[in-house]
Formats: sequence, structure tokens, C-alpha cells
Amino acid sequence: ERAAEVVVVADPALLAARAQQLGLGLQLHACDGSSTAPVCRQAGELSYIAEPLAATAVPGELQPANAPYVLAALRRAAQLCLDGHCEGLVTGPVHKAILNQNGQSFSGHTEFLAEYTGAETVVMMLVSDSLRVALATTHLPLAEVAANICGDALRDTLHTMVAGLEHYFGCIEPRIAVCGLNPHAGEGGTLGREEIEIIEPCLAALRDEGMHLEGPVPADTAFTPARLAGVDAVLAMYHDQGLPVLKHSGFGETINITLGLPILRVSVDHGTALERAGGRGGAVDEGSLGAAIATATELTLRTR
Amino acid sequence: ERAAEVVVVADPALLAARAQQLGLGLQLHACDGSSTAPVCRQAGELSYIAEPLAATAVPGELQPANAPYVLAALRRAAQLCLDGHCEGLVTGPVHKAILNQNGQSFSGHTEFLAEYTGAETVVMMLVSDSLRVALATTHLPLAEVAANICGDALRDTLHTMVAGLEHYFGCIEPRIAVCGLNPHAGEGGTLGREEIEIIEPCLAALRDEGMHLEGPVPADTAFTPARLAGVDAVLAMYHDQGLPVLKHSGFGETINITLGLPILRVSVDHGTALERAGGRGGAVDEGSLGAAIATATELTLRTR
Repeated sequence: ERAAEVVVVADPALLAARAQQLGLGLQLHACDGSSTAPVCRQAGELSYIAEPLAATAVPGELQPANAPYVLAALRRAAQLCLDGHCEGLVTGPVHKAILNQNGQSFSGHTEFLAEYTGAETVVMMLVSDSLRVALATTHLPLAEVAANICGDALRDTLHTMVAGLEHYFGCIEPRIAVCGLNPHAGEGGTLGREEIEIIEPCLAALRDEGMHLEGPVPADTAFTPARLAGVDAVLAMYHDQGLPVLKHSGFGETINITLGLPILRVSVDHGTALERAGGRGGAVDEGSLGAAIATATELTLRTR
Repeated sequence: ERAAEVVVVADPALLAARAQQLGLGLQLHACDGSSTAPVCRQAGELSYIAEPLAATAVPGELQPANAPYVLAALRRAAQLCLDGHCEGLVTGPVHKAILNQNGQSFSGHTEFLAEYTGAETVVMMLVSDSLRVALATTHLPLAEVAANICGDALRDTLHTMVAGLEHYFGCIEPRIAVCGLNPHAGEGGTLGREEIEIIEPCLAALRDEGMHLEGPVPADTAFTPARLAGVDAVLAMYHDQGLPVLKHSGFGETINITLGLPILRVSVDHGTALERAGGRGGAVDEGSLGAAIATATELTLRTR
């Protein structure tokens, strides 16, 4: 059904054990990552590139000894893309706290991949069937958001966003609605001055370069159907200004794409849900992973 | 069509002039505000209580001389409710800046009515056909939100919310999803500690009182259809965390109800749109005003 070969970077013993535990038939095919022609597998088959676990993995239990495994798999997969052996990277969720032990610092896939690939500006954009929302700031305590809105970063973010919308989504001269930081976009300065002092001058300069930008738009009117009909994407100033709408809309699955990397990277939009790992604790919805793989495939074929 | 008498507090000359300008037939009926039996008017008829303008009103032009008129009409309408002559107050939008001249201070209808009626805790709740979202903080610059989250205020807000959901919406022992302040509800303290230090202890104490509270819930998962199906309302910590979802959903019109006042007050969910006043600048959508009047009527009849 998928016009691409999906290769899992993992310990094959883990894949086999989990398939058996879940009562799923799974035929594994080793793959060395060299650039042979892709093999489209049938249902029940999976290609893998072996990355060995350090300790046995138990579903739902955090295993500090395997933290280096998670990072090694991520580096391996990113390198396969950088080397041209793979054309895109799909990531699942990780548990950040366990990766931050032993002096490691891991604030998120996005930041990790930016550093690994040497990207200067990366932008997290969430995409559903009906909506694309990028974030000017990502995983910051709310108290720190306002101080992190700066014109230079906003300009780089919008440049990256425009390039990504053009490259991956075929948007020609994309139109972007940019949210204000404050409620009512500051209401003329009475509810905050970042719009007047930072956002508006930045947008004015970018419009002079030819960008098609609306805003700063009050966030509560940025997502009305009428407004969305006129733009290709929305730039929210922070995480909870933009993402609740996406996950509420429920029109199809949501995926997370990182713009600005030298490689294609698509991610699920959810966390680890440790309490459901291994089939415990009720139904697991793999919809976002399926959407992430399908999106990565589609974007790969479109931009090949 | 409406089972209640709608009485406009305004200058009747203004109402007549605007109707004529828009080519609408309008028959005005003076009403002195004493508690005679309500008269349900026909389409094209309107009851009014006269409040005189200070200067001629021109559509779309701010007239500082009429600022006292706006406030007087608001006080008059609130007093009619307090005295039992009217059973609910519906407000349109006002232009705050013009009301803040000449030493007046007007930060919003909600705050104005709280002070006028002596209410201690008021809660702004937005209501659409499918969703009820209340706010723990309302019109603050984003940089000031985190410092304004405090346990006492949160407790009072939730008490007011529960009472309002029971009284107006017939929710028995309402269930409320409470959002965290930070992205991912702080992710165990790594993205902010207000959840651990303020919100969780407050919710624990209220659960001990018997309240049915979920959370602190990450805002981006608080509004998924599955989550919403299990609760009567959501409490967002700030304006742009809760309201974009409501206005995006587009399932019917949204209205704003103030909980905690001794009177029923329902409002439209939009601003003044001065550029469209008097029928200029394209179509005007009066849907939210219609929904506000309908909601006020319905809640009046339900709680009579």
C-alpha cells in the first residue's frame, strides 16, 4: 500500500518480542542501510537496521541503561538521511527525563536534530488535514515566553516557514497568518506592547521583502474558518496558543514536521503513554504514527 | 418567536436613525422599566428604555462626548436587573480606549459589572453549542499571566464555575477539566513548576470537598473530542489557551456569560468592528448577538 520502504532502526530482538507479545505475525528483513533499491514490504513484513539494546526492554518501564540506545538509534537514522541512504526520518515519542540522566541534555527531538545536522533555524510545524500551525517558541515555561519573542528569531522562523511550505507543500508564495503574543494582539498596546515593538516591525520588514503575511492577528480569531480559508499556515507565538486548536479539530490525524533541517523529519504528535505500552491499559491508537509515515512518504515522493 | 420581551437601553433617536439608514422598518415602543408584564414584540418592533446621547452618533466614528452615555446605559441596564424589572442583561461590544479617557477606568464589561453589583469573584465563560470554556485569568499581557495564577483565586474561580454550571446549565455535580499553565502541563516540572506548586494542591483540596476535576491537563489534549465528551466544561488558565479552540470549532455561535454576578449577563464574543458600523465595509454577521439574546432568554426561562 505504501510506495516506499519503511526501515525501522531498532534492536530486531525487541521488534520480534513485542510482535509475539501482541500476537502479531511479523517477518523481519535485515537491511544494511546502503543505497540499494527500496523494497516495498507487504503487510506483516518490516525492514530493519540493527541497533542493539543495552538491556532488556520491558514495556512501560523506563530503563536508564537503554537511554544511549535511543540516542544512538536517532543519530543512526539521521545519518542515514544525511548520507542519502534514506529519504526521510519518522520519529516516535521519547521520554525526555530518562534521556537527561548521566549528564546528557536532551530537550527534544527537534533541538537534537538541529544540533546533529548543524541547522541554524528549525521550526516545529503541526499539520492536520485542514490546518498547518507552526510555533515561534516551543517548549518553554509560560513565564518565559514573552521574553523569548524577538524580531531576529521571528524573521528566521518566517523565512524557514516559507521555504518549508514551498518545498514540502507546494505552496507558491505562501500566505501566513501570524498571531499576536498577547490577548487581542495587545489591543493597541493596552494588553501588552510586544506586537507594537517587536512583531509589527518584523512583519513590515518581511512584507517589504515580498512575504504575504497577515497580522499580528488575535489568536482567538486566527483560527476561524473564514480566516484559515485565506492562508496556507498559521504561526503561533507559543505552544498552547496554537496546538489546542489542532488537536481539537479532529479532522484526520495530526503530525509534526520539522522545517529547516537538511533532512525530512516527521513525527507523531503525542507522548510516550508508558501506561499503555505493550498493549496494557486499553486501546492504543497508532493513527498518528501511520499519518507520520504516510506524510513522510508523500513528501518524499513529492520532493524527489 | 422569542418568549421574552427584549428591551434596548439606548437613545430612541439613534435606534430610529440607524434603522432608517439601513432601510429597515422599525416600530419603537417606549417602556419605563417598571415591572409590568412582558410584551413579546413582533419582528420589526422593539421596546426601549430611553437613555439620551450627549452628541450625535456617527457610525464608525468614536465620539468621546458619548462615553458617559455608554456607561450610563450599562449602569441603567444592570440596575434594572438588580431591581428585578429585567431578568437578564445582554451586552454588545464596547471600545475600551474611548471609555478610558477623562480619568475613567474601564477594563471590561465583566470587571465593570462585578464592581457595580458588588460581586467578589466573577468568571468569564465562553459557550458554544459544543463547548464551554472558562478562564482563570482574562485580559492580561501574556508576560503577566504566570504571576497571576494563584491558588486562592483558582479555588474561588472553580467554586463560581461549579455554581454557575449547576444554576444556569443544569449540570449536576459538574465535571471540569482544568488546564495546566505550561506546555504539557509542565511535564513533571521540567517546563514550569506552577502545576506542582499551585494548581495540583488546589485541585486536590477541591476534590476533597467533592468537586469532580480532571487535571492539570495539558492544554493541547484538553480539547480533544474524547476528553471533552467526559466533562461539562474546561477551565483554561488564560485567554489564548482557551478561546482559539472555541472560535475555530464553528459549531454554532459563541456567547460569553459572566458567572458569579447576582444578575444574568450574556455578551457577544466579538469586538466593535468600527470599520463595518452602519452597514459599511461589507456584510455584518449579527449571529453572536442573536445567540446572546437567545441564550439569555433560554437561561432566564430555565432558572425562573
